[in-house]
Amino acid sequence: MARVVVDVMLKPEILDPQGQAVQRALPRLGFEGIADVRQGKRFELEVEGSADELDDAALARIREMAETFLANTVIEDFTVRVEESEGATA
Amino acid sequence: MARVVVDVMLKPEILDPQGQAVQRALPRLGFEGIADVRQGKRFELEVEGSADELDDAALARIREMAETFLANTVIEDFTVRVEESEGATA
Amino acid sequence: MARVVVDVMLKPEILDPQGQAVQRALPRLGFEGIADVRQGKRFELEVEGSADELDDAALARIREMAETFLANTVIEDFTVRVEESEGATA
Amino acid sequence: MARVVVDVMLKPEILDPQGQAVQRALPRLGFEGIADVRQGKRFELEVEGSADELDDAALARIREMAETFLANTVIEDFTVRVEESEGATA
Repeated sequence: MARVVVDVMLKPEILDPQGQAVQRALPRLGFEGIADVRQGKRFELEVEGSADELDDAALARIREMAETFLANTVIEDFTVRVEESEGATA
Repeated sequence: MARVVVDVMLKPEILDPQGQAVQRALPRLGFEGIADVRQGKRFELEVEGSADELDDAALARIREMAETFLANTVIEDFTVRVEESEGATA
Repeated sequence: MARVVVDVMLKPEILDPQGQAVQRALPRLGFEGIADVRQGKRFELEVEGSADELDDAALARIREMAETFLANTVIEDFTVRVEESEGATA
Repeated sequence: MARVVVDVMLKPEILDPQGQAVQRALPRLGFEGIADVRQGKRFELEVEGSADELDDAALARIREMAETFLANTVIEDFTVRVEESEGATA
């Protein structure tokens, strides 16, 4: 089983008001030096087969899926990457 | 400016019903071979100073902040890691 | 078309750390008198047929769906209610 | 204590890809007749004082707060309404 991670974040030019509220709360809560906070989504997909078997065609399919069902590319950017699955210790 | 990423996911033993709905929708939508989908949150923090200056004490502070304000550790796991900021090309 | 709204909130005994961060930020941001903030999810379902046709059996089906795919009832509570659809002016 | 509910939904013209994935999954999962699913956020604010004391000025302040810290009005609509607090039985 391979793990593919899809990160979805609002585009940089689109305001994230809740992230901003958290950022502005931090100094009062005792945390200094954090200039910006943005919140997005992280999807973990468990894909059949090993990470080695995830060829370009399979990743292209996952990218297509992310573009269709996980991100709204008008307002969000996304990245797709393969991670070692937690149980995948050699 | 350094970027610190905090990923927050439901603990593995806690059901993610929406991820499950998406996973079960995929074959019908033409995407085979995805055994599980889980959705979590990704926070991107822009931290003052360079990544090199983020010492263990600073990271411990950020971990403490994540534990207090970003994740509910009764039901969620989180990880903290430093990433090169997008603009940080040499 | 009838609109059914499903509200999903963390159970009261489960901490909402981000809501808490926002709540603690508010006084500093100039908003006093807010004792608690909790964030949940709101689903709007457009259901075929008019609101009058949504009988108990249909609502029971939607409740079952919410319980299976929209809420994790171990950690979340949900409510289902029928709303007039926006376009449903007589 | 009065409860104020702020509902935040993506504007109708902005695609909700995850809601769409859930909607398209439903027939296969045995749920027919749901034409659209959209997911938004619901905030519950506990406000000091009784619901009766929530005058127009207080609500205007909360509306301003929602506009600044809970919703991004470029891509989201929001509504503010007063609800009886759960514990507010006479």
